[in-house]
Amino acid sequence: MLSSSGMIKGITIMTATEQALPRRRAGRARTDIDIATTRPGTPGGIFMRQFWHAICRSRDLPAGGTRPLRIMSEDFAILRTQAGVPQVIAYRCPHRGAPMHLGSVEGEAIRCVYHGWKFDRCGQCVEQPAEEAGFARKVLLKTYPTREHLDLVFAYFGDGEPPPFPHFPHRTSPGLIQVWNAEQVPCNYLQSFENSMDEVHVAFTHQAGGSHARLSVDLPVITAEETAWGMLRFGTRTTGKVRQTLHYAPNVTRVIVPPLAGMDGVGGWSEIYFSFTPVDDENHLWLITSHVEVTGEDAETYKAKRADYDRKVAAAPPVMDVVRDIWSGKLRFAEVVHPDLAVVQDIAVQAGQGRIEDRQSERLGRSDAGIILWRKILERELRAIAEGRPAKKWQRPPPDIVPTLGF
Amino acid sequence: MLSSSGMIKGITIMTATEQALPRRRAGRARTDIDIATTRPGTPGGIFMRQFWHAICRSRDLPAGGTRPLRIMSEDFAILRTQAGVPQVIAYRCPHRGAPMHLGSVEGEAIRCVYHGWKFDRCGQCVEQPAEEAGFARKVLLKTYPTREHLDLVFAYFGDGEPPPFPHFPHRTSPGLIQVWNAEQVPCNYLQSFENSMDEVHVAFTHQAGGSHARLSVDLPVITAEETAWGMLRFGTRTTGKVRQTLHYAPNVTRVIVPPLAGMDGVGGWSEIYFSFTPVDDENHLWLITSHVEVTGEDAETYKAKRADYDRKVAAAPPVMDVVRDIWSGKLRFAEVVHPDLAVVQDIAVQAGQGRIEDRQSERLGRSDAGIILWRKILERELRAIAEGRPAKKWQRPPPDIVPTLGF
Amino acid sequence: MLSSSGMIKGITIMTATEQALPRRRAGRARTDIDIATTRPGTPGGIFMRQFWHAICRSRDLPAGGTRPLRIMSEDFAILRTQAGVPQVIAYRCPHRGAPMHLGSVEGEAIRCVYHGWKFDRCGQCVEQPAEEAGFARKVLLKTYPTREHLDLVFAYFGDGEPPPFPHFPHRTSPGLIQVWNAEQVPCNYLQSFENSMDEVHVAFTHQAGGSHARLSVDLPVITAEETAWGMLRFGTRTTGKVRQTLHYAPNVTRVIVPPLAGMDGVGGWSEIYFSFTPVDDENHLWLITSHVEVTGEDAETYKAKRADYDRKVAAAPPVMDVVRDIWSGKLRFAEVVHPDLAVVQDIAVQAGQGRIEDRQSERLGRSDAGIILWRKILERELRAIAEGRPAKKWQRPPPDIVPTLGF
Repeated sequence: MLSSSGMIKGITIMTATEQALPRRRAGRARTDIDIATTRPGTPGGIFMRQFWHAICRSRDLPAGGTRPLRIMSEDFAILRTQAGVPQVIAYRCPHRGAPMHLGSVEGEAIRCVYHGWKFDRCGQCVEQPAEEAGFARKVLLKTYPTREHLDLVFAYFGDGEPPPFPHFPHRTSPGLIQVWNAEQVPCNYLQSFENSMDEVHVAFTHQAGGSHARLSVDLPVITAEETAWGMLRFGTRTTGKVRQTLHYAPNVTRVIVPPLAGMDGVGGWSEIYFSFTPVDDENHLWLITSHVEVTGEDAETYKAKRADYDRKVAAAPPVMDVVRDIWSGKLRFAEVVHPDLAVVQDIAVQAGQGRIEDRQSERLGRSDAGIILWRKILERELRAIAEGRPAKKWQRPPPDIVPTLGF
Repeated sequence: MLSSSGMIKGITIMTATEQALPRRRAGRARTDIDIATTRPGTPGGIFMRQFWHAICRSRDLPAGGTRPLRIMSEDFAILRTQAGVPQVIAYRCPHRGAPMHLGSVEGEAIRCVYHGWKFDRCGQCVEQPAEEAGFARKVLLKTYPTREHLDLVFAYFGDGEPPPFPHFPHRTSPGLIQVWNAEQVPCNYLQSFENSMDEVHVAFTHQAGGSHARLSVDLPVITAEETAWGMLRFGTRTTGKVRQTLHYAPNVTRVIVPPLAGMDGVGGWSEIYFSFTPVDDENHLWLITSHVEVTGEDAETYKAKRADYDRKVAAAPPVMDVVRDIWSGKLRFAEVVHPDLAVVQDIAVQAGQGRIEDRQSERLGRSDAGIILWRKILERELRAIAEGRPAKKWQRPPPDIVPTLGF
Repeated sequence: MLSSSGMIKGITIMTATEQALPRRRAGRARTDIDIATTRPGTPGGIFMRQFWHAICRSRDLPAGGTRPLRIMSEDFAILRTQAGVPQVIAYRCPHRGAPMHLGSVEGEAIRCVYHGWKFDRCGQCVEQPAEEAGFARKVLLKTYPTREHLDLVFAYFGDGEPPPFPHFPHRTSPGLIQVWNAEQVPCNYLQSFENSMDEVHVAFTHQAGGSHARLSVDLPVITAEETAWGMLRFGTRTTGKVRQTLHYAPNVTRVIVPPLAGMDGVGGWSEIYFSFTPVDDENHLWLITSHVEVTGEDAETYKAKRADYDRKVAAAPPVMDVVRDIWSGKLRFAEVVHPDLAVVQDIAVQAGQGRIEDRQSERLGRSDAGIILWRKILERELRAIAEGRPAKKWQRPPPDIVPTLGF
């Protein structure tokens, strides 16, 4: 017999729609919501598409340039017009599906490489060399709200009007803004976002190399609280001093970090904005933006040191090659030498948890307080979306809540 | 409740057989036939197996040689006997499944590498060194009709008697026959066959490099008509001049093309036979055969120039490496320099449409007249096959219909 | 209508549990048992987990070292304590899933790289730097019985007490024990185990290179019998001489083999222990251990020759690169030159049968007697496991049954 829910003697047959939605099961604690997925149409995908996302470094998109993008399991192209405006567009030409980033930027428009269809920056088709007049005006290329901030390009992939931009405040004191890495990390974004809530790991994962020694002298007690814009997390040390870190919903962490190995001597501790942008459910883009309070001659010294550092990174083996050698057992984790050591260490451990971590098999403790709270928030929001109930209206964060050093 | 068609409350459960066959759905225009697949047992697979297929270059199969083949999602081996006869055979030995192309050609037979079973060119097992007499005569290796033509090897993979061979006429005037490329292209064959029906693309896709400049001066109006042997397509320019191109069912295009970059100065425009042979649904083999009307000293000059050109291609990066750099955004399409530029351009765009193009999302126009007609023919034929109705009896083309230059 | 077995008009819907278990079908001869799989929870997986398995070479695991392992489709880590004891442990830390082999061996314990949790060799958590006292004693890391023998590390992955160790006798006469290759072969283990039961193949597969010429003069008649510990196999030559080979259940072959090319002149024929350890259903680890009866000065000569040989192998292209060139048709099987030629030949043919051989399409003969018997044994045992009936109690083999040369 078939019940109305499609159950046959304990075998569940689901339609595609049902499969995309989570189900509540009696006696199983809230494990039926997939908090890691951001695929379109899933609760996680709908949740994530409420926000602006950092998608590439400004310097990687020169005027007249184009690039392919993959964000939250969907393909897009991005171009920068000759006037310098970045614009995210659909990946494929509506005519016969050629990749739009193979096309040519012409002024403020782009022309497809296959049959020369030309689209303006709003996506309106304005030229079809081999077609009848009147056809072009019926054809639209999908476009997405696109902005620039902190030397990064951001886009909005949701329905309707995007939220205010930028969606988080930043330090406005004089200093250098620099985007370092743009690493594609082979695991789900949430693992790395969670790792940024995990202050205890630095004493162990980053022990070799010594970059985080100052954070490792005694282990902080972790607490966290939900805010109107995300989560505020505290690490309290035995001295009573408190280190405060900001987690802006849904995937940005603002924190104060020590100078990387090789960057000591100038600039001191700096503010960092981590963005963990989902490429698909098994990959994300890790963008690291720093604000270093150096000006004048100090800024020049800092830049020179940074350029030297970048040369060393460029000459070193690619981070993922080193990580793969650690995973396969060829390289001992504790013995790795690399100019980008902290990045190697983080990716080896976080992506080492699996492409999508099995969160059902964990044994969480008090030091995981930040992670536990964020998962609760995510589950609550995704469940509301799944059940069609009102979800939280996320607020823009106030500029006066800032991360602190804590000692 | 279950209806006899296996419907459960809107959920369709299909047997394997049903899944292989298309279904007619009310209110959905003819999109239920998969015109791109050539897998065995599908309507497309049955349709394609009515014809001879070019499978490799003659020169890549020396006497006594063997090679593996994958054609329309099935594996085969091919050998050339010591007397010089090519023969397609099953990929695996019937004994214990060893790949037959690892075996040794002995005269007109082949001996398996695993236990020395020997098969004659008809597939009859004629020796089993470690088995009892009488077993061998019960064992057959499957073989497939195999022929040679225009420096290519062709085979027939259908049931019953193959159609007449060769299945299309060719220019018999004096000249050079040369098979150039044998590229494995990472997309469905139909995309490239359709591209060969698309005269407008040359003005845009092949703009850089200038190889097709003479075809790009004004855009032709495209028309097409079905014939007993395939499709005849016309490009009419504003001058009234008509360029005629032949599309032999199911995957051969005969066309007049300009000299490739590097080949100018000798030979002029030449006839080309494009074969697009499915490897599987996501890959095909693109074989390009040219007939150039040069003889005597001119032929020697032409060959020398061609040899020089081939050396340049051999020294250049592999075509697919360049294509992947274009796709990833590392290389700008318009700035690529490569001796085989037109091939790079074609593959970047056609395989860029996806491994199997999503034909449901297109916006076709009048310039797609050839493509539209061929899809209608394909759908009609595949639907007849799917529904067990008589399909078209394809005729051998007459030799007096030939492609024309058109200006 | 639905019957109690979940049949809907000829369509079988199975629960996950049913899918893992084989079903008996009327009129189909015993093809419903998957004898090749060793995945956990399958009859094949349960069968295989009754035995000890060789998992790596002793020399590849120095004191204080760690390595990842994949055995029978499950991941593990292995470490060697500072005191020199090898221990297989779970792949992931129970806390947040970091790979344990990234951790550090501290004395007889291992500390996780992520948050410093420390586990003793029995898997008991003994330290959690950032957690409350009392949590650690509730946390266990899974461990597996681990032993060392013949310069190999073995582990037991089944439930309950492991069987006696070592599970097969070995030659105790003076001589050199050496583990040669540890090749990861890209096919199911059973193909290679079956190949080791197939004496006839040496005359054909290993013809080129001549390493097995003495075994190829006349083809033996193969017979086999089941024993309390596995299978005894005989190759009887026309002279009446009998070559005896031992197959210890479930995946070890003990045989006498000729000197490899390059090793002639010292040591003569030697005893070999082949272990075919499943990595997953499509890969296995092929470990080759030899016992050569050389002592004193002869042993030194032998070692020097072996070192020279190893240098040649290290300088040659990787075995799998050569195999892939054979498969793709770039290299002719009969013309391959490589210091490890017999290994190249074996892998090209056995993994050439497919990742998991299609045993339904074979035509077996009298020379396959060993393979036929072993499959019957496997099917009988797996069926007993699947149906919950008592399975065979495998005995430890007696030391007086040894392989013989046979001429």
